[in-house]
Amino acid sequence: MGAPALPRSPHIPGAGGDSALLPYFRPPLSASRNAPTLPPQASGTWSRRWTGSRHRTSLMPLWFAAAISPSHPSPCTVFPGIERFRGQYFHSRQYKHPDVFQGKRVLVVGMGNSGVDIAVEASRVAAKVTICTGRGAWVLSRVFDHGYPWDMVFNTRLMSLIRNSLPGPLSRGLINYRVNQWFNHENYGLQPEKSCLVREPVLNDDLPSYILTGRITIKPGVKEFKDSSVVFHNCPEEEPIDIIVFCTGYNVSFPFLEEAVIKVENKHASLYKYVFPTHLQRPTLAVLGLIKPLGAIMPVTEMQARWVTRVFKGLCRLPPQSVMEKEVNEKKKNQVRRFGLSFDEVLKTDCLVYMDKLASFIGAKPSVLGLLWRDPWLALTIFFGPCTPYQYRLGGPGRWEGARQAILTQWDRTLKPTRTRVPAGSSSPCPSLLTVVGFLLLLAAVVFCFQ
Amino acid sequence: MGAPALPRSPHIPGAGGDSALLPYFRPPLSASRNAPTLPPQASGTWSRRWTGSRHRTSLMPLWFAAAISPSHPSPCTVFPGIERFRGQYFHSRQYKHPDVFQGKRVLVVGMGNSGVDIAVEASRVAAKVTICTGRGAWVLSRVFDHGYPWDMVFNTRLMSLIRNSLPGPLSRGLINYRVNQWFNHENYGLQPEKSCLVREPVLNDDLPSYILTGRITIKPGVKEFKDSSVVFHNCPEEEPIDIIVFCTGYNVSFPFLEEAVIKVENKHASLYKYVFPTHLQRPTLAVLGLIKPLGAIMPVTEMQARWVTRVFKGLCRLPPQSVMEKEVNEKKKNQVRRFGLSFDEVLKTDCLVYMDKLASFIGAKPSVLGLLWRDPWLALTIFFGPCTPYQYRLGGPGRWEGARQAILTQWDRTLKPTRTRVPAGSSSPCPSLLTVVGFLLLLAAVVFCFQ
Repeated sequence: MGAPALPRSPHIPGAGGDSALLPYFRPPLSASRNAPTLPPQASGTWSRRWTGSRHRTSLMPLWFAAAISPSHPSPCTVFPGIERFRGQYFHSRQYKHPDVFQGKRVLVVGMGNSGVDIAVEASRVAAKVTICTGRGAWVLSRVFDHGYPWDMVFNTRLMSLIRNSLPGPLSRGLINYRVNQWFNHENYGLQPEKSCLVREPVLNDDLPSYILTGRITIKPGVKEFKDSSVVFHNCPEEEPIDIIVFCTGYNVSFPFLEEAVIKVENKHASLYKYVFPTHLQRPTLAVLGLIKPLGAIMPVTEMQARWVTRVFKGLCRLPPQSVMEKEVNEKKKNQVRRFGLSFDEVLKTDCLVYMDKLASFIGAKPSVLGLLWRDPWLALTIFFGPCTPYQYRLGGPGRWEGARQAILTQWDRTLKPTRTRVPAGSSSPCPSLLTVVGFLLLLAAVVFCFQ
Repeated sequence: MGAPALPRSPHIPGAGGDSALLPYFRPPLSASRNAPTLPPQASGTWSRRWTGSRHRTSLMPLWFAAAISPSHPSPCTVFPGIERFRGQYFHSRQYKHPDVFQGKRVLVVGMGNSGVDIAVEASRVAAKVTICTGRGAWVLSRVFDHGYPWDMVFNTRLMSLIRNSLPGPLSRGLINYRVNQWFNHENYGLQPEKSCLVREPVLNDDLPSYILTGRITIKPGVKEFKDSSVVFHNCPEEEPIDIIVFCTGYNVSFPFLEEAVIKVENKHASLYKYVFPTHLQRPTLAVLGLIKPLGAIMPVTEMQARWVTRVFKGLCRLPPQSVMEKEVNEKKKNQVRRFGLSFDEVLKTDCLVYMDKLASFIGAKPSVLGLLWRDPWLALTIFFGPCTPYQYRLGGPGRWEGARQAILTQWDRTLKPTRTRVPAGSSSPCPSLLTVVGFLLLLAAVVFCFQ
């Protein structure tokens, strides 16, 4: 699900980790804060220094796409009392290996995905691990219905339709009910402070069992730090700690660009569809991957790239500047009203709706209704099945002959790397007996009702 | 749930790990294979050497209780081709630390609890981990309904009644359905070979997500070993491996006792209720903890100890030798017919039924029906709630005044160490709205049915 349009090797599991995907990546060129800022160029040429290349200066061509995630940690010093804390502390960005936590009492501040990942790793070597969170979070397992990866079940067109069509409270109530099916978040001190707001979920399989077995403790937000301890809100006693990891407070900034190029307001960058700066005369600069979709980032970034290259080539046109600005401002207002001001929430979007939008710009959006007559089985698979990125290769630019087959075999390919043992006598009469009994009961109920 | 009768500190989580319980244990005296075997003593005195004590020889008093788990690994050499395998191999008993697997391709043979635990630890440092299993297993999470520990939900008197009253296939079908609710075991190659047999479940929270993310691969049983690889049944290709851990093949043996004292037949020791040798003239020897209950071992062993001490004191009488032998032989036949010959299965028992039986011997079994008139709330909590060991302290020898209160507060005490954050605005109108809608729909359905 997480891989781009062309299907990957069937030997990589559905939720394969970083190491499985590593061969598909090349090391990026790192940005330098000391590099001179880029002025907006009317000509469309951008010049900048690369700190990863052998030649330190190069002139960029007409178009320039920055595949960057320009988020930077806020200074840790905003927490009251941190200046007198005598233990070690650092931001999650600086974290490399759990060895640093060996035998220590660890406090992880913030409960995003990186915070929980670090806490889980730390808990295997540390004396004690505490996560403190003011807001809480829904925790989802990657192992979803029937053992399929969560996004194959969650990100379907049917589910998206339900989420976006039902009245807000009912839709959120259904989501609350669904996320609490694994375990009751309240029982583990995790439930979001305002559970009516749909927040970015934390994807972690380990956290619940680590809480239940006492490896990780959840606490409310930090009130203040002392010499070698911390005080939490609504908790009278101090908790001694040796080391703090700050996994919160990200800012959006573009230190290598002049401020006028991308305006950042309330942590919200003025980017049309999270990609194009609205203030440029010509679309010669694009930001890719500055988005937090409720799903895998790779297909979303690939779709952005497909759109961007066509805009750069002049095959796609952007709307007038005023229209783009209006939409960005509207979005800012809506997002602020709906979600508050945090970086995570501002950049969050329903990835299926977003990808459909970009795909419609380049003419690659699949038409389920249109397909229903020509190829009903494919149409139903697209509507009820996961929104795999091959859907955007059925037609339009970059059309791929194998897309249909890839869509129809997506479930089998997902199970291939996990279903590596098939016992001979696996078919059993028990479930069918249960099914028969269930069917008979249902029949009896129906007969009874219509008598 | 796992702690003995007196409730432990409310700060220890419900499924607290080894380290949380360690302070409650003392290091045992280890048995030595070189020690002379113990002859059956008509007088009731047993003499033996302790290899853990300062004085190497001591004369034991009239009664002697051996708190032992006399299981020994079968030799690893029974696997075809193992003699030519040039990598490292050892039995799970010898495993101490995952460092031995650093960067290696690991094969774990057998899928019991220890096998999966080792595989999970290995997968964090190894290059590749494969578990091979001929029989498969149901995998359960410790995080059960609402986040309560699994045995608090599974081991209730109501559930036990359902399990033991329903016709076999239906009961097993229900169990199959229940264990597959977390994930479909077939999709992960884990389902038991004969899913109609209720086997000992594997309790592991990590395995499913580790399979889904490709850290662990499940394979069928070993066909043969080669120089540096293994061939599995029904798999044409060889798999290269560096290190093998055998987590299978346990035998029951009592090397420090003369063979006549405890007869072992088909891996089944002749012990009345898994405790008293049936061949002794007087009950002066007892084996504690040689049982695999579907639940925590501690309350079961405690109940055995309470019974044993009363038998030793002469306050409880054992049935005549012929009755005990008959029961043991019946059990052997039944177990063999129902489950086959494996060690795990022979010693497996429904812990609630077993504890009730022993409790009835010493007059400590709670009477739910009797309580229903005197203390209905307590009776209902005992029937519908988890079978916590305080239930056996309401009356009889070792009666404890605090038992009633401990039973009534068991849910709260379970949540106390995990519910460590209670946000102010946690109550939300969404679930209640959902409940109202659900109720209205139900009402409409009922009205429609009765029209």
